[in-house]
Amino acid sequence: MVVPSPENTTAISLDALESFCERALTAVGVSPSAAKTTATALVTTDSWGIFTHGTKLLAGYIRRIRHGGLRSDCAPQIAAEGPAWAIVDGQSTLGQVASTFAVERAIDKARTCGIAYVGVRNSCHFGAAGYYAWLAARANMIGLAMANDVPSVAAPGSRGAIIGSNPIAFAVPAGERDPILLDISLATVAGGKVYANMKRGEPIPAGWLIGPDGRPTNDGALYPEHASLAPMSGHKGYGIGLLIETLSGLLSGASFTHRIGSWIFGDPSQPTDHGAAFIIINVASLMAPTQFAERVATLIDEIHCAPPADSCERVMLPGEREWAHRRRASAEGLQLPSDVTHSLEHLAQELGLTFPE
Amino acid sequence: MVVPSPENTTAISLDALESFCERALTAVGVSPSAAKTTATALVTTDSWGIFTHGTKLLAGYIRRIRHGGLRSDCAPQIAAEGPAWAIVDGQSTLGQVASTFAVERAIDKARTCGIAYVGVRNSCHFGAAGYYAWLAARANMIGLAMANDVPSVAAPGSRGAIIGSNPIAFAVPAGERDPILLDISLATVAGGKVYANMKRGEPIPAGWLIGPDGRPTNDGALYPEHASLAPMSGHKGYGIGLLIETLSGLLSGASFTHRIGSWIFGDPSQPTDHGAAFIIINVASLMAPTQFAERVATLIDEIHCAPPADSCERVMLPGEREWAHRRRASAEGLQLPSDVTHSLEHLAQELGLTFPE
Repeated sequence: MVVPSPENTTAISLDALESFCERALTAVGVSPSAAKTTATALVTTDSWGIFTHGTKLLAGYIRRIRHGGLRSDCAPQIAAEGPAWAIVDGQSTLGQVASTFAVERAIDKARTCGIAYVGVRNSCHFGAAGYYAWLAARANMIGLAMANDVPSVAAPGSRGAIIGSNPIAFAVPAGERDPILLDISLATVAGGKVYANMKRGEPIPAGWLIGPDGRPTNDGALYPEHASLAPMSGHKGYGIGLLIETLSGLLSGASFTHRIGSWIFGDPSQPTDHGAAFIIINVASLMAPTQFAERVATLIDEIHCAPPADSCERVMLPGEREWAHRRRASAEGLQLPSDVTHSLEHLAQELGLTFPE
Repeated sequence: MVVPSPENTTAISLDALESFCERALTAVGVSPSAAKTTATALVTTDSWGIFTHGTKLLAGYIRRIRHGGLRSDCAPQIAAEGPAWAIVDGQSTLGQVASTFAVERAIDKARTCGIAYVGVRNSCHFGAAGYYAWLAARANMIGLAMANDVPSVAAPGSRGAIIGSNPIAFAVPAGERDPILLDISLATVAGGKVYANMKRGEPIPAGWLIGPDGRPTNDGALYPEHASLAPMSGHKGYGIGLLIETLSGLLSGASFTHRIGSWIFGDPSQPTDHGAAFIIINVASLMAPTQFAERVATLIDEIHCAPPADSCERVMLPGEREWAHRRRASAEGLQLPSDVTHSLEHLAQELGLTFPE
């Protein structure tokens, strides 16, 4: 299953990577269907080139499963529901399992009502928000996905972290074309970028970090204990972060802000009680799907034809790079970054498996 | 009705200002109820201190009504609907009239379904998005309001404007407390700020404008003909702008991007065909409203108690400044900026009315 890539380094096929993830998860007691759900989410994310939120997460999830903070003996349940909404109790299953269950319910409800909201409580880190938005787009629906997390982002005028980096993603189906797909956090940059700059000995640019006095700092060593991430565009990112906290945390009945457990640093025997929210609109309820696809195509063509800056080949749509990466990965296999490969090799050793096979 | 303010300048009561707007609108043929709807939206916005989107807009709207681009002889209609959604044809009525009609339908549908989407086409500039979000919060619902507009904002890598500044607002009801209320555009700063800096002879800060070569510029004289506004946080603001364009323009059947008419600079005898979208969630469908209000209050208290930066009295919630401004305006009358007063005085003269009375 390991195929040489054009650059002559080792690439792994998406199928082989997914199969390894499934074996690792079932090895610690996760049901085959939950393992498949999780593996597909992680490998799809890797296939987009978003390696921070793909299979790199697997070892951490498995640690939580082994310590009991993530349950492999439960399944998510509908806690309450109405015509166009539901609250899902994730039962401390993997965030991917609880969230995929929730999106599927939202898709069903949107099909009959036109739009649906599903909130999730008792969930955990759910990986890449964009994956769930894409599940909607694959069903020819517009998908919005979001989640809360342990505070790491400052508010304008705060000394410390007030809200999580609270990811939000959306996907818009585009007929035969790739969906428009955006997946962002509300921090100016991800915390991982701070670590990466520190590791390379590079300075932290202005605007990334807020120091312990509530003022901008470029001392990366302060992060995360004594510095927090700056919200994108100040009050705008802070405000959107609060909207996400409201929809995924307050309204779902999940924990919010400092009550959420850290899935990496927290006690792995305790649930984290993350919240998530999905808002899904069924295009076909509102407009003939072909007409909608034509309108989206017109917008895409218009943007592709817009005069680009000198430094730029053409103006792109959100998600374009990710779809190109996925096509390449499907055809030629995936070039995993070394930190991901090492993490999976180490995990394989721990579980008595081999990676790659 | 004109009361002296503590600062000894002239203040106008909110009622007097609303009454003037109603008289001005009915003078050009707008029905009393549509005039009331529009006046309330504009004066509420002024009462928040958002003078760029309040009664300052009235003269421009009335010019369009007199030239026929805005219709005073029609009313918005439901073009299509389902259990939790509707498309409203604004019939080229005032954006405030079409949008208020749409929000009211969305509130009705959310009451039975839990969530509703209403898109609007054949609308015009709708003023402040936050007003419509607040209409939802007043009904104890979570409101999201957005609209598209003529492109003025660049995409990463574009030479010119790709999308409108596409406002988005949300409001979260908070029981006895003021709702959380955010109203932003997707540009780093509003175009009005560029004009204001130019007028004061102040430089344009880095990050506000993209010049004709697609690179940042601080030459304010280039705006708006040869420069566009930078999207907030680059690809993040651009992407959220596309989401808003999708929900308010593509899905509603309205015009989008360059097809939208400029309500200020365009032919005032032609409709602009702006789009708008409202997503409203009925809290009471999902959770006991008192429980939700308690959770919101916990979040608000937590943020108010967070250690503030030295320069800051306390960390604030979005909307706090606006609610404080409104309370002051209700008690002491509103101090209108001189440009708004002049615009209303000039309009009064044109229509044979007096302002203030």
